Parts: sequence; C-alpha cells; structure tokens
Amino acid sequence: MNSGWSQKCFINPEGPGPGDALPDTDRILRELYQKTEFQGQRIRFSAGALRSVSAVTRQGDWNLTVTLGFDGEQWVITRLEPQDTTSCHYGLCVDLGSTSIAMQLVDMETGTVKDEISDFNPQISYGTDILTRIFYAKDQPDHLEELRIATAKGLSDLMDALSRKNQVDLSACAAMIIAGNTTMIHFLLGLDAFCVFHTPYAPHTLAPDVYPAALLDIPMEGFVYCYPGKANYLGGDIISGLVAAGITRSDEIRVFLDIGTNGELAVGNREFLVAGAGAAGPALEGGVVRTGMRAAAGAVDQVSIRDGNIQIHTIGDEKAKGICGSGIVDLLAELFLEGWMDIRGKLNMDAEYVRLIDGEYAVEYAPGLYFYQSDIDEFLKTKAAASTMVEYMLRIIGLTLEDIQEFYVAGAFGTHISKESGVVIGLYPDIPRERLISPGNTSLIGARMMLLDRGKRDEADRLVEQMDYIQFGSVDDFLHLMTAATAVPHTDSTRYPSVMRKLEARKNKR
Amino acid sequence: MNSGWSQKCFINPEGPGPGDALPDTDRILRELYQKTEFQGQRIRFSAGALRSVSAVTRQGDWNLTVTLGFDGEQWVITRLEPQDTTSCHYGLCVDLGSTSIAMQLVDMETGTVKDEISDFNPQISYGTDILTRIFYAKDQPDHLEELRIATAKGLSDLMDALSRKNQVDLSACAAMIIAGNTTMIHFLLGLDAFCVFHTPYAPHTLAPDVYPAALLDIPMEGFVYCYPGKANYLGGDIISGLVAAGITRSDEIRVFLDIGTNGELAVGNREFLVAGAGAAGPALEGGVVRTGMRAAAGAVDQVSIRDGNIQIHTIGDEKAKGICGSGIVDLLAELFLEGWMDIRGKLNMDAEYVRLIDGEYAVEYAPGLYFYQSDIDEFLKTKAAASTMVEYMLRIIGLTLEDIQEFYVAGAFGTHISKESGVVIGLYPDIPRERLISPGNTSLIGARMMLLDRGKRDEADRLVEQMDYIQFGSVDDFLHLMTAATAVPHTDSTRYPSVMRKLEARKNKR
Repeated sequence: MNSGWSQKCFINPEGPGPGDALPDTDRILRELYQKTEFQGQRIRFSAGALRSVSAVTRQGDWNLTVTLGFDGEQWVITRLEPQDTTSCHYGLCVDLGSTSIAMQLVDMETGTVKDEISDFNPQISYGTDILTRIFYAKDQPDHLEELRIATAKGLSDLMDALSRKNQVDLSACAAMIIAGNTTMIHFLLGLDAFCVFHTPYAPHTLAPDVYPAALLDIPMEGFVYCYPGKANYLGGDIISGLVAAGITRSDEIRVFLDIGTNGELAVGNREFLVAGAGAAGPALEGGVVRTGMRAAAGAVDQVSIRDGNIQIHTIGDEKAKGICGSGIVDLLAELFLEGWMDIRGKLNMDAEYVRLIDGEYAVEYAPGLYFYQSDIDEFLKTKAAASTMVEYMLRIIGLTLEDIQEFYVAGAFGTHISKESGVVIGLYPDIPRERLISPGNTSLIGARMMLLDRGKRDEADRLVEQMDYIQFGSVDDFLHLMTAATAVPHTDSTRYPSVMRKLEARKNKR
Repeated sequence: MNSGWSQKCFINPEGPGPGDALPDTDRILRELYQKTEFQGQRIRFSAGALRSVSAVTRQGDWNLTVTLGFDGEQWVITRLEPQDTTSCHYGLCVDLGSTSIAMQLVDMETGTVKDEISDFNPQISYGTDILTRIFYAKDQPDHLEELRIATAKGLSDLMDALSRKNQVDLSACAAMIIAGNTTMIHFLLGLDAFCVFHTPYAPHTLAPDVYPAALLDIPMEGFVYCYPGKANYLGGDIISGLVAAGITRSDEIRVFLDIGTNGELAVGNREFLVAGAGAAGPALEGGVVRTGMRAAAGAVDQVSIRDGNIQIHTIGDEKAKGICGSGIVDLLAELFLEGWMDIRGKLNMDAEYVRLIDGEYAVEYAPGLYFYQSDIDEFLKTKAAASTMVEYMLRIIGLTLEDIQEFYVAGAFGTHISKESGVVIGLYPDIPRERLISPGNTSLIGARMMLLDRGKRDEADRLVEQMDYIQFGSVDDFLHLMTAATAVPHTDSTRYPSVMRKLEARKNKR
C-alpha cells in the first residue's frame, strides 16, 4: 500500500451471471472499497476509464488492473487494463525552472527513481531572461497562449523522451507533481505574469490546486498538482525545497538557502519559519561576468593555484571557453588565499596572472580568458547580498550561527561549488563543514516526496501558512550590512577563523 | 440564495494595492467564503476561469460575477464575468428519450422555465427502434462512438436552438441535469448497451456520476449530472419521474405508471417502494397498429360516437392520416360503450362502421382508415400487460386499490389520453378520477427539480437504494392475471362499476 498520488490495484471481481445483474462499475468499486486505502472514500470513474469498462473486463475475463489518480478531493479511476499490470506503475515529478525543466520517472510501488531527464525550457525561445517573456505575454492573450503551450510542450517532450527510453506509456500516469516558481506556474496555467514583477506584486494565484492533466495540455490521463507559493518571489519551487529539507519537521533550527536566478532564504524548524527572497542570483551563476557561462562543456568549473600557477578543470575536459559559478567561487577563493586579491576584493597588480586589459585589471584564469576587476566587484556584491540575507534574517529572529544545526545550500549552484571555497569568499558562514549540506535539486526532491506521499500536501499548506515572509529590499539596515559583507570573506574577519588559519598557512608555504 | 447545481455571485473585492499583495484568486475566494452557501465548503477554479482572472478583474475594475458549478463533491468556479450578470443565470434539464429529447432552459434564480424545446433524438438515423441501435454499436467501437456523438449532438443542437431563440450564451451554463433510460445513458457516456438487453441484464453502469460537460462533448463549461438507474429496464428517467411524483416524500401510498416505449410501474410511499418494468409500451403508442402513427399533424387523437356516428378530431385539424395512442383509447372505449365491440374485444359485424377487409373485420374510424380486429387484439394484450402490472404489484405488496391515494400516469401518453376512456377500456383502475393524475413529462419535471435542488441527489440515491425491483416477466401467475385483464374493461366487471353504469346509460339512450 502506497500513500502516493496514484494507485494501481489488481482485482478480479465476479462477472455478471444468471440472477446477478449488478452493474460492472459496482463490481469494480465493490472490490476497491474493500481495500483499506479506499475505505471511507468516494471513488469515481473518469469518462475515459468508464468507456473502456466493457472491453477491458471482457479481454481479461474480469482480471483487471485499475489505475487511480487523486484529484485533490477524491480518487478517480483514470484507466482500466486487462490482467495484472501493477508492476508497471509510474508517476512523474518535475522541477519547472525558468531555464531548464527536470523530470523524474518514479516507480510508485518502490519509490525509486527509474530515470531522470532535463532539457531547456522551451519558453527560452521567447527570451532567455524571464522578464523578456513576461513583457512578451503582457496584455497579449495570443502571446500568453504561446508561452503556455511552450511550457506544456516542454513537459510533454520530456515525457516522450522518458517514454521512449524506458519503453513505458506515460499517458497512463495518474499523477504529476510540479514545483515551479510563481512565474513558471503562471505560464503553465496560462496566466499573465506581469503582476509577479510589478508593484504591488500580487500574483494572480499562489494556490494552483490540482488539475486534470489534459486541461493543461499535458498528455496524461491523471492529475497535476503544483506546489503552492508564498509570494511572488517565493514560489512553489522553494516550498517544495523546504519540504525536501524537512525544515518544519525538524526540532533543530535549519537554514535553507537557494541560489539560482534569484536567492531565496528560509530559517526555521517545527516551531517557526521565516523566509525571504532577494536578487542574489544571476551574478553568482556567471550571468554578469564577461566570460561567464553556464555549466556546460568547456566551462572552467574548478580552479586552484599551486606554486604560483593557476590550474583549471573544465567540464568535459574540453578547451576552456569561459567560467561557470563553481569556477568563479574557486577562482576568487584562490586569488584571495594566494594574496592576488585583497580583503576588499581588489586585484594585486603585481601578481603574475594579473594584466591590464583595456585600462582595467584582470586575471587571466585560462589562456586568453580574463576575469576583470569589475566582474569581481559585481560578483562580491552579489555574494554579499546572499550572505547578508542570512545574517540579517538571523539577527531579526534573534539567532546566531551557533544556533544553526544544518545549513542547506540548495540547487545546482549549491551542489557544484566547493564548500571550502564558498566559505573562503564569505558566501557561506564559517561553520563546521558537516553542517553545510548540499542536497542537490531540492525542488525536484520535494516534488518526488509529494508524489509518493499525499500527506505532504498538508505539510506544504501548513508551511505556507506558518511562514513569515520578509522583503529584504525594503530594509535600510540591509544595505549597511551588505557593504560590510562585500569584503572577502567579511570586514569582520573574526567571523571566519578557519579562513584566517588557511590564509596564514598558505602565506607560510609561499 | 438558491440550492441548485449552479450559483452566480456578484462580488467586488478590493484589488491589490501598495502593501497588499494577496493573490487575485484569494481575493475572489475570500469573498465567496463569506457567503453562507459556501461556508465550510472548498471552492476551486476551473483552468478556464483561472485563465480569465486577470482580464475580467481589470475589465470590471474588480466588480465581477462568479459562476460556480457543483462537480458532485465541491464547487468549481466555471466562469468569471466583469460587472453584475447575476440576473442572467440559467441551467438546463433534459429528458433524454430514445425517440425524442426534450430540454428546458431554467432560470436558476426564479426557478421558472424560460423556454422548452424538443426534437427527435439524432440516434434515430441509426435505427428507429432501440434494439437496432444497440446491435449497430455492439462490439463496434467506431459505431458506438457515432452513437455517442449523435447523442451529444442532439443535446448541443437543442442548446443552439435555445441560445438563438432566447439570446443567451448557454456555454456559460454551469449545470445540466439529464434523465434518461439506461440505454440512453450508456450511449451518452459511450458505453456498449448490449448488456442492457441481454441476459443477465447487468448494465455497465447505473450510477453515471457527475462529469464535466466538455468530456461528454456537450458545449458547456459546467457539469452534467445524470440520474442514476435501478436496473436495465428501470433507468434514470423513471427515478427522475419518481422524484417528481414525490413518491418517497409522501405519507400516503402512490402509484406511478409510465407508459412509453416500455411500461414502468412503482408503488410506494415514505416507508417502502416497489418497482418493476415490462414490455407494455409500443402497442399503446400505436406502434403495432396498421394505421397507427405518432401524435403528429393528421393523427386522429380523439374519437367519439354520437347517434351512431363516429366523430373524430385530428391534430392540427388536418385530414386524418392515421391514429395515435389517445385516439385508439378513445376509439376502443366508444366501440365498447356503443356495443360495437364486446367484452372480449371482438367487433360486432353488424355495426354500421364495421367492414370485412381482406377477410378480417375492421372499423372504419375515418374515411378510408381502418382499425382491424388484429389491431384490437394486440392493443388489448398490451393494455392488459399494463393494468396487470398494477394488479400484480398491489397483490404482492398486499394492497388494494382503496389504499391508493394518488395514481400517477406519467409521460406523454398519460397526458394525452382521456382518463375516462382509459378507465372504460380497463387500462386504468376504476377509482375516483381526482386520484388519477397526469402530471406530464415527469422525467423532465424531476430533472428540473434536481437542477434547482442539489438535495434531491440524496433523495434519488436513497430512492434507488430502498427500491425493491421485481421482474414481471418471470412470474407464472402474471400471464394468468393478464388473460383476465385482456377483456374490456376486465373479465371481472364488478371491478369497474362506473363503466358498467356508463354502458347501461348509453344502452338506454339508443
């Protein structure tokens, strides 16, 4: 017995016979109602499943498998199949990101991930950045519909690929769970997302409910649940992540930091939950860096300086084409430890790899590839924003870093950057490293947890309900704190004893 | 406040403003949840209504009207409209018959019928009789789909006609209630109906539930409820009729007799309910009569004999083309009272209008139109079947005619035939005439009552639950009783004192 959003049951009721004229549907329901998971529930047939009842019961001589999806209120029989097909029971969970969409094919019986796939979000053809898309669709129903269809196509293309690869018919899936930010959910549902980015930031909806997949043009017989959001910049992707991190199930206090296109932060436990969001992301992902690039083949993703030489690693071991987020964090950490960049983030013009290019100092981190002083300044401002969010939030709650038992750094960024480098540049606090946890794609993990446990829906709703949302931008104090955090690792170096020790050790080595 | 299957509410929530970023959907729901009819309920948005939220709220400057349909479990917002449109709030109820479909446009606020329309069921092009259609669709999914689409088209054509005539957009309707026999509901849902007519008579379903209209190809944003049935030959049309007749709401015992293509009978009150069905119909409607016809222009619908002359009335006052059910009942009653036909139903060959045609006696009821002895024999067998159903059922329950407070004769047949003639030929029992009630199309009336009162759903379910269903055909005794009932009005003429008095009076007059 699973407690997920879909169920498959093999049944073999008696067929009709002399003196027994019970309708077919009653025969099927009678068997299902005997099962503990459906006791006291109401089950209905989808029109499609109902239409197949005659053919299926005859084909299998009343040996049949019933697929049920949960529509948010009750169970719906979405498909009937002859014979026992319960061993083939899959559900889908999705991280619907602005840039890419990740989808997992989950075995609903074992809870294991059978396959995972991801691809760019087809919305990209309407603009790589989200604002371009929003303005494209604003007040233009045809354009909005294009974006809606593109979103649905992104999902159905991934389903097609998973179907082919795994030789399963995914139209039979009865459940899909989607975690996406507020704008992505607006586009999925066909809602104009201008409100998400425009004062007073009142989204059209934050509680998208459960929809028949067909109504969203997703080629599946079952239902789609989208994680609810808390606010325009704190969407279902973060709520899903917080469920994944178990923040409200924990007695100890946890920090959840997600750095993607934006930065989102939550601090809490079973008792309380405070969250906020800020524009922390693009710079960290290499967005504003002149030779920055996404983590793709040819991107410098690891940097170290040994014996005065910069050593790099590139994704796919290809010729370096640019630098991605994890490479930047490594590079800045190494520049600082090596003394090529000072606490203010200024390049040391005497260092061997530092050159004057077009009137600006820059470090040549790979042959012909430069990281400029202005890139560093920009990047440090952004890392300051991220770390200040943490500092500021702990302060208003009245906590210190010692109170934090687990510090989750979610998302692809958190997964790929080196914890040590993150601490050295002051992006992360200097806490015992085992408390710094990079769980991976928490949106997707939370979506999978939801898929396998309907009870998580209440957890998500309660989490949204109990969450206090603060807007960082609106606080004067915030900018002041941020300036201090722009230093490497921080103006107040006593906060970073392990970094100071490392700096000393490196100095002694030279 | 109405308690029907759809609601329209005018609301004017505050729009978003500085410091107030509540999502649009929450603003709308907050207003609705304040209304008593939605307290403690859960309301969700249809995908379509949700998509319109931005445009509608802006167009009406947050003055908007919400249409809600009941999906059987909860309320669904099916449409948003700018400004106050609550005065235009309609629902649809349908009698889905094998021959014709009748539809009423009901004002949900006043409960009045704004318009009514009917037309032939387009399934007729696949066979005028129901068995031909069933065999056409049997084991042929394409053919079954043709019949399903024809059924949906029948409904949508009537909607179109009502839309045009009344200048209302019926796609905005949030509720349609359908009463139909088991076969009609099977075809509506796309189910092979062979099971309905073939042993062991186990239908695919008798509890069709509530479906989004779109899934049934009915061009409406709301939901379709179909009355449940009790058995293959006792479908939702009869359950609807019984709700209309209030049989289970009555302290006194009522009889409900519906004579259509089949004959259905129920006897009961608040305490008990027994029902059964039999093949009583076609002959009574003129189906097996050589010059029989449906009640259309040119049909003889009233007959009397005055001073030895047959006087007729035709529908539309046109030249007589044939004779319909009410004409036949009148004709036989008058032939009997005039002494031109004896108690065994045999024509008196000495009577002026009786002629020998092709070796068979026949009465020339209109110039060149004959009603044959074999027609009479067939018709009397069928009237015997109908009246015996009543006699037999009262006997097994242990009741007499004196116990019956109200005797409903439902359907078009009951509406059009003369009560007096019905009693004279022994189709109806000889009870005080005010107890013989012809309420009209009870299927349609029951559908309208349901449309206006969701509470009737429980009544219908309980009615089906508490009903004891008996099969007349399977009883030996039945045939014996029927033979006695073939006489006019009955072998035991003491049961028909008023008819005997009338016979005496007429004799004295001659």
